[in-house]
Amino acid sequence: MDFAQKIRVIEDFPKPGISFKDITSLLKNGETYHKAIDALVDKVLPWKPELILGPEARGFLLGAPLAYALGVGFVPVRKQGKLPGETVSETYELEYGTDTLEVHAADLHAGQRIAIVDDLLATGGTMLATARLAEKIGAEVVGMSFLIELSELGGREKLKKYPVFSLVQY
Amino acid sequence: MDFAQKIRVIEDFPKPGISFKDITSLLKNGETYHKAIDALVDKVLPWKPELILGPEARGFLLGAPLAYALGVGFVPVRKQGKLPGETVSETYELEYGTDTLEVHAADLHAGQRIAIVDDLLATGGTMLATARLAEKIGAEVVGMSFLIELSELGGREKLKKYPVFSLVQY
Repeated sequence: MDFAQKIRVIEDFPKPGISFKDITSLLKNGETYHKAIDALVDKVLPWKPELILGPEARGFLLGAPLAYALGVGFVPVRKQGKLPGETVSETYELEYGTDTLEVHAADLHAGQRIAIVDDLLATGGTMLATARLAEKIGAEVVGMSFLIELSELGGREKLKKYPVFSLVQY
Repeated sequence: MDFAQKIRVIEDFPKPGISFKDITSLLKNGETYHKAIDALVDKVLPWKPELILGPEARGFLLGAPLAYALGVGFVPVRKQGKLPGETVSETYELEYGTDTLEVHAADLHAGQRIAIVDDLLATGGTMLATARLAEKIGAEVVGMSFLIELSELGGREKLKKYPVFSLVQY
């Protein structure tokens, strides 16, 4: 299936010069959505993950059904202050300023095999911070999987320690 | 399966006097998560939805795997300004102030059968606003499904126009 054809490109969002890749046009189609998840399952299954991690909010749209299809748990990675329990956090650089991601410390454990899933790989900053969260707890990041990769932005190079798979490349 | 036992209760979050129902303790367990989604599937399938709508961000954690399991599309309902395309929006009252939800106008259509899914039913305000979004486009809301219902808050009464199902009641 040509997944790229199902992804709508919207120019100048969220600011001028950016070509936004809108995955909602793919998700709204039951057949396309199901096949995209199944294509991710095929790649992620050999990594033998025991748990899927996904950053809010679009990471949930891919990671949650992937976890369901694999029969493993899902752990949401959230912005600071959203999780009620004790958290581990990681702050990383954005183009302007910083951002902080958190995960419940009790939701993963040392030695656990973790796959990280998000909608889009750009510079890789969010992914690297997510991987560090897992590694702080002693878990092993066995791979990262994306619906879309913006190849020019160098995310794959930043994440070269990890197996990386993307379904559609721009 | 006793799903309630898998939901962690955290007192005084996000503010004093609130008993926060933390679903991450259920989601991290692959077997429990899978069975919870399957239990929702059993209830939602007879409504014959053609599309699942879920509000950000925790609604994605239930709605996305439910859509995958049913083989139908998923449409994310987002806070104002997050969606890149043309939207329909609905503003509703909170305890203090208002909130606005949006959906891509092109992602659903008149006559379509829509089920709405969220993690938790409290007062029902978010759900009613989400239903109105669908109805503005002429779609039919065939039911609403939740992991958790806080019965004392009267959400079911506010949503009495619609079939409502919840897996765990407090």
